[in-house]
Amino acid sequence: MALLVVGTVAFDTIETPYGKADRVIGGAATYISLAASYFTDPVRIVSVIGDDFPEETLADRRTRGIDLEGLQVRQGAKSFFWSGRYHNDLNTRDTLTTDLNVLADFDPVLPAAYQEADYVMLGNLTPAVQTRVLDQLTRPPRLIAMDTMNYWMEHSLGELLDVIARVDLLTVNDEEARQLTGEYSLVRAAGRILSMGPHYLVIKKGEHGALLFMKEKNSEELHIFYAPAMPLLDVFDPTGAGDTFAGGMMGYLAHSGDLGFENMKRALIYGSAMASFCVEKFSVARLLDLDADQILARIAQFRKLVHIEG
Amino acid sequence: MALLVVGTVAFDTIETPYGKADRVIGGAATYISLAASYFTDPVRIVSVIGDDFPEETLADRRTRGIDLEGLQVRQGAKSFFWSGRYHNDLNTRDTLTTDLNVLADFDPVLPAAYQEADYVMLGNLTPAVQTRVLDQLTRPPRLIAMDTMNYWMEHSLGELLDVIARVDLLTVNDEEARQLTGEYSLVRAAGRILSMGPHYLVIKKGEHGALLFMKEKNSEELHIFYAPAMPLLDVFDPTGAGDTFAGGMMGYLAHSGDLGFENMKRALIYGSAMASFCVEKFSVARLLDLDADQILARIAQFRKLVHIEG
Repeated sequence: MALLVVGTVAFDTIETPYGKADRVIGGAATYISLAASYFTDPVRIVSVIGDDFPEETLADRRTRGIDLEGLQVRQGAKSFFWSGRYHNDLNTRDTLTTDLNVLADFDPVLPAAYQEADYVMLGNLTPAVQTRVLDQLTRPPRLIAMDTMNYWMEHSLGELLDVIARVDLLTVNDEEARQLTGEYSLVRAAGRILSMGPHYLVIKKGEHGALLFMKEKNSEELHIFYAPAMPLLDVFDPTGAGDTFAGGMMGYLAHSGDLGFENMKRALIYGSAMASFCVEKFSVARLLDLDADQILARIAQFRKLVHIEG
Repeated sequence: MALLVVGTVAFDTIETPYGKADRVIGGAATYISLAASYFTDPVRIVSVIGDDFPEETLADRRTRGIDLEGLQVRQGAKSFFWSGRYHNDLNTRDTLTTDLNVLADFDPVLPAAYQEADYVMLGNLTPAVQTRVLDQLTRPPRLIAMDTMNYWMEHSLGELLDVIARVDLLTVNDEEARQLTGEYSLVRAAGRILSMGPHYLVIKKGEHGALLFMKEKNSEELHIFYAPAMPLLDVFDPTGAGDTFAGGMMGYLAHSGDLGFENMKRALIYGSAMASFCVEKFSVARLLDLDADQILARIAQFRKLVHIEG
């Protein structure tokens, strides 16, 4: 099934203790769509770039079943640019530059084919832009997921809560879950967030894995699933890992069409596996050369990681 | 089977955001032995207290199958006292007071019945004291486990490495594993530690669970198991959670007698379950009133937390 992806397409300059990558391809929609493209087809991107974006990159995406009809190209303007430097622990980073460029006045326009999307992934963006996308859908999707970040909690909380109320699944990291709710306990935070609208909540904990929460309608019982992260020999570049996780998860869901709790758990493992590949090389490099056997072998490793005989 | 436990028996004064507990019973050997006592019998303690320790606490321990013959009672001296204040996140704490008292010149003496122990848990203590205990064993135990902390890495590294070389299983937290090896990657750190002597390594990650590592003899392959921690509605007091984890793990192993990797995984789940109880009340309160049904129900919850159908 088709997956609609909204988010940034960008240039990133990344410094980690392992090296530096200068003006490489990045952005949430890039990571999400590449990860999802291994599982479902088409993946439809809504985003904006300048005239500085390499045509061969766009051509590569089309060969992967990624539909770029909703990708606006602004002549005479520059693509979004972000640069950051990771600390030695790779868990924290400083943002060095954020040049919004074409993103500053981005107004998403959904082509006709996009308006009946069954699966929608709203990457981290201004809540108003996420809302504009939802407003253009002509029928209710089977699943709307969204990602967001602390910046919008501080600067656009009202608009953010309006979008959250309209989605089925929210992904945030542990600190964002705490900030959004004022609850330190992730179980309490999850309970609050699930009362804001979403049916599912995924709390991303980076190298510690991810938690899936679901509350049944008309029940107080909270279902919890813990998807571990794979302990890796080396992490070269964590950029995009959370988006890759979301892309793998949504791509698997759009492919399988099963939104039950058991299948959501599987989707988290697919997302975790894709994220574990993402961090093995700089930028999107590792997401460009995977094959199905490698992905299935990694999924098997994830299941073995927590498996006990008998 | 008998489990020999070496460690502190202490008074703790604990402040958390949920309240304060004044001069309550604590110490590594206390938490380890209480947790282990639910699974195996006898649990034999080697430790030291002053004449200020309540007789009813000692009587309670004896009713639980805890052998106190190796617990030295020093007349006219005070028991070890520790006080600390947890920060709001409960993951970090400040030590306010450490009064070694009787611990300052503790010389462990193993009664005859203790010297043929099959299972040994060396709680966090001066490496020289841990060594003195091992030197008094008259035959090789089936399993020697030890816990330690960053303080000994900074102040007694040589003696610490000597003990580590003699044990089968080491437990440390993630920061300690990094400090001991200079490796940020826990997989690399584990590889280094397993070349120092132990056959098994458990890296404790607090609210993020624990990792079990094992390297086969004459093989480079590293086996990894991820035991998640249970997301809890509230954590009241994290004091002793790591020791309770070790006690549950070692008690289960001493009971089952199976030291294969599959059973070590089960042991980590037993340890995690006991730790999840420990933090629900101040001090050891929750460890005093458990029953088998509650423990088995919690174990089932842990297995469900990561379980996927099919």
